[in-house]
Order: sequence, then structure tokens, then C-alpha cells
Amino acid sequence: MIDQQRLMLTLELQALYAEYSACIDEGRYADWPAFFTDECVYKVIPRENFDRGLPLATLAFESRGMLEDRVFGITQTLFHAPYYQRHIVGGVRIVDVEGERIRAEANYLVIRTRQNEISEVFNAGRYVDVVVRDEGRLRFRERCCVFDSELIPNSIIYPI
Amino acid sequence: MIDQQRLMLTLELQALYAEYSACIDEGRYADWPAFFTDECVYKVIPRENFDRGLPLATLAFESRGMLEDRVFGITQTLFHAPYYQRHIVGGVRIVDVEGERIRAEANYLVIRTRQNEISEVFNAGRYVDVVVRDEGRLRFRERCCVFDSELIPNSIIYPI
Amino acid sequence: MIDQQRLMLTLELQALYAEYSACIDEGRYADWPAFFTDECVYKVIPRENFDRGLPLATLAFESRGMLEDRVFGITQTLFHAPYYQRHIVGGVRIVDVEGERIRAEANYLVIRTRQNEISEVFNAGRYVDVVVRDEGRLRFRERCCVFDSELIPNSIIYPI
Repeated sequence: MIDQQRLMLTLELQALYAEYSACIDEGRYADWPAFFTDECVYKVIPRENFDRGLPLATLAFESRGMLEDRVFGITQTLFHAPYYQRHIVGGVRIVDVEGERIRAEANYLVIRTRQNEISEVFNAGRYVDVVVRDEGRLRFRERCCVFDSELIPNSIIYPI
Repeated sequence: MIDQQRLMLTLELQALYAEYSACIDEGRYADWPAFFTDECVYKVIPRENFDRGLPLATLAFESRGMLEDRVFGITQTLFHAPYYQRHIVGGVRIVDVEGERIRAEANYLVIRTRQNEISEVFNAGRYVDVVVRDEGRLRFRERCCVFDSELIPNSIIYPI
Repeated sequence: MIDQQRLMLTLELQALYAEYSACIDEGRYADWPAFFTDECVYKVIPRENFDRGLPLATLAFESRGMLEDRVFGITQTLFHAPYYQRHIVGGVRIVDVEGERIRAEANYLVIRTRQNEISEVFNAGRYVDVVVRDEGRLRFRERCCVFDSELIPNSIIYPI
């Protein structure tokens, strides 16, 4: 029998992941950095590099301030054709809980829709996360988006 | 700490959503209207219209009776090439609970398989729902399928 | 009101399904047979055959030993171009509980990524499972992967 507290924690994590997806998919980018602690790691990294311990990432940010800069870039300065994203996140898996740090993972799929194009598989992979309680809510201390996708159709502009 | 009652409600909603998907994906269309209250709204609407508050919807029904008519159309009168649907629904998110009305959302993806064709992304979006307790079970008072997809390969015949 | 014990069981099943997906998607094939009881059924079967009660399956194994043979084949002898899999599993649905046997189902989607190719929809369908408690953990007594996909791009090499 899995203990009940752990099951309830899974539900809390599911809620966090669902809020995160909704925030991004609805284009509320200004709300995105608040999902992270002040000091944090956010990376989008190819599986091949992650598995071999190679540091090269497609995107890597190391503080909430850097995430805010990114949001400014997305909404104000980066030149790009807009597209919709739709995150489908599978079951959340608690890897371990060590004091305050919850290591959790979940598979994800991002469907992209560009104007006048059909919806397509954009990015698939898994979240490798460290989650902590911070100011009474769960936040990401680390979120690595480890993607299988070998070819990325155009650039990754919005958060994964 | 999220309160326990809300977490349990999330689980109930997950069960409802899973039953709904199974009903449609197995082609048990006659059972589909019973997921709704007598007076209800079922809409399939492009995100662009939904976001701007424009009323134009691809499909819009306003009672269980209309859903039953639709089922009759699907199974008896509409001329169409049959296809399989497969719904993959992400984490359910409770937006708010106001008395009897539960507002909930979830991202969805529908994979379509036509005879002798490869499976393909058919429709991606989010459910924007109002759920109530009715005759001892959870039912949809409103289900809006707000889809990102800009181009729909052929028509939407079956329920989303 | 759905009873609380059943909701907790759903969470346990979700955890099992998430572990199973992670095992396969990370390529830890040697760990895969331990998800099954000694006597077990693992099948990958087209929906058309399953729905008509036809026995013909793409893959069919009937013991953990046979699964171990398959793993040996995958990792040592089968000639194939490697690819990544990513499982996205929707909400788990308990169909019934009869003594020790839990019949459960869930929709799944497998995204495949081949070297230097874009990620693609590989296989979509539903798991039709019998789960039991065995040596203190949940294990599959039966797992039928009933797939909608009419055409399979190349062979199914890895577990679904």
C-alpha cells in the first residue's frame, strides 16, 4: 500500500502542473515566472545531452529575473510568427522527497498550431523537476524540459 | 496546503472526464447525452472566437434533446466516412466552486484514425466546463470544447 | 459521491501507469517484465480484431519469461533502427474490482522520435488491463494495448 500522504502530494503536483500548462497555453506569460522560486533553474535541453551529462541546452535560465527578461523578450522584442501551444501532460511521478525538496517527473507533449496551418506535434519529452514549498504554495526550484524531439520546426519561442 | 476536499473533487472530475472519453472513443454515442444535464450547453468553438467573445461556434447545442438529435444524425443520417477517435486529456483544473457549480478546465488532444490511414492529430484545445451534481452523479451543465486547431481535416462528425 | 477508497485506488493506478511509461521511455527495458505477474498476458492488438473478438494480435506473450525473452530480443538480437518513445497516458478508469482483480483502462498515445526525424504520432489506443496486488505492489496480470492505428510506420519494436 502506497502511503496516503504521498498520494495527496501527487494530487497537489498534478494541480501545479495543470496550472502551469494553463498559464502558458493561454498566453499569460507574465504569470509564468511566479511558478518558480527566486533562485531557480529552467532549462530546455535535448535528451541526448541530458542523458550524457552534457551541459549544452537550447535554453537555460538561472533566476526568476532571467525568466522575467525572457517574458519581456517574448512579448516585446523577439521577432516571431505567433503560434498556439497546447500542453498535454501525463501522470506525475514522485521520484523522491528529501526534506523540502520533491523530485518529480512527468511526460509532456506540446501541440503547436500556427495560423492557417494544421495542429502538429511540436515537442515531446519529460519534465525533470525539483519542487519546493515557497510562500505557502508549490514552486519549481528546477524545471528541466528534456525533449526527445530531434528536429524542432522553427524556434522554441514560448515556454515549454 | 491545498484542502483535501478539493483534491478529492479533482479525482471525481478526472473519473468523469475519463468516462466521457471512453464513451466517445468506444463509439457508444447513445450514452453520450447522459453526461449532460437536461438543460445544458455543448459547444465546439474556435479559440479565436472564444477569446474575443464572438458567439460563432462550429457546433452549438442547448439541451439534452438536441444532443440526442445529434446522436441520431451521427448514427443514422449523416453521410461520412467513419473514423476512430482517441482522446488524451491532461490534468483537470478546478477554476472555482460556487455553490453547486464547479467550473473546471482540462487540455485535450484528439487523435483521429481513418481507415487505411496513419493516426493523426485531429483537434487540440481545452474543455471549459461547468459541472454540477445531478441525480447523484456529476454531469456537464456546460461543456465548451475550445479548439486551437485552425484547419480541421474534413468535418467534425463525432463529439469532441 | 464516489467512495474514497476507490479514488485512492485510482491514484495508485496512476502511479503504476506513470512508472510503467517512465521505465519504457527511458529505455530501461530490463525492468519492464517486473511490472507483470509471473503468469501474465501482454498483447498488442488492433482495435478491429479486439472489438470482434478475433484473436490475432501483433504481439502476444503469456508469461514473464516470454517478456524477458522479448527484452533480450530488443536489446541483443533484433535488428532495428533505434527510436525514442514517449507515452502520454490519459485518466485511468476503474472498470470494476472483483476480489483481487482490478480491471482498469486508460487511453494512451505514443510519440516516436527517430534519429534526425521530427517527432510523430506512432501509436494511439487504450490499455485494457487486469491489475492485482502481488508481493506488496500492483502488477499487471493482463495488459492489452488495443491500438486504433491502422498503419504502423515500420515495426513495433519496443513495448507499448
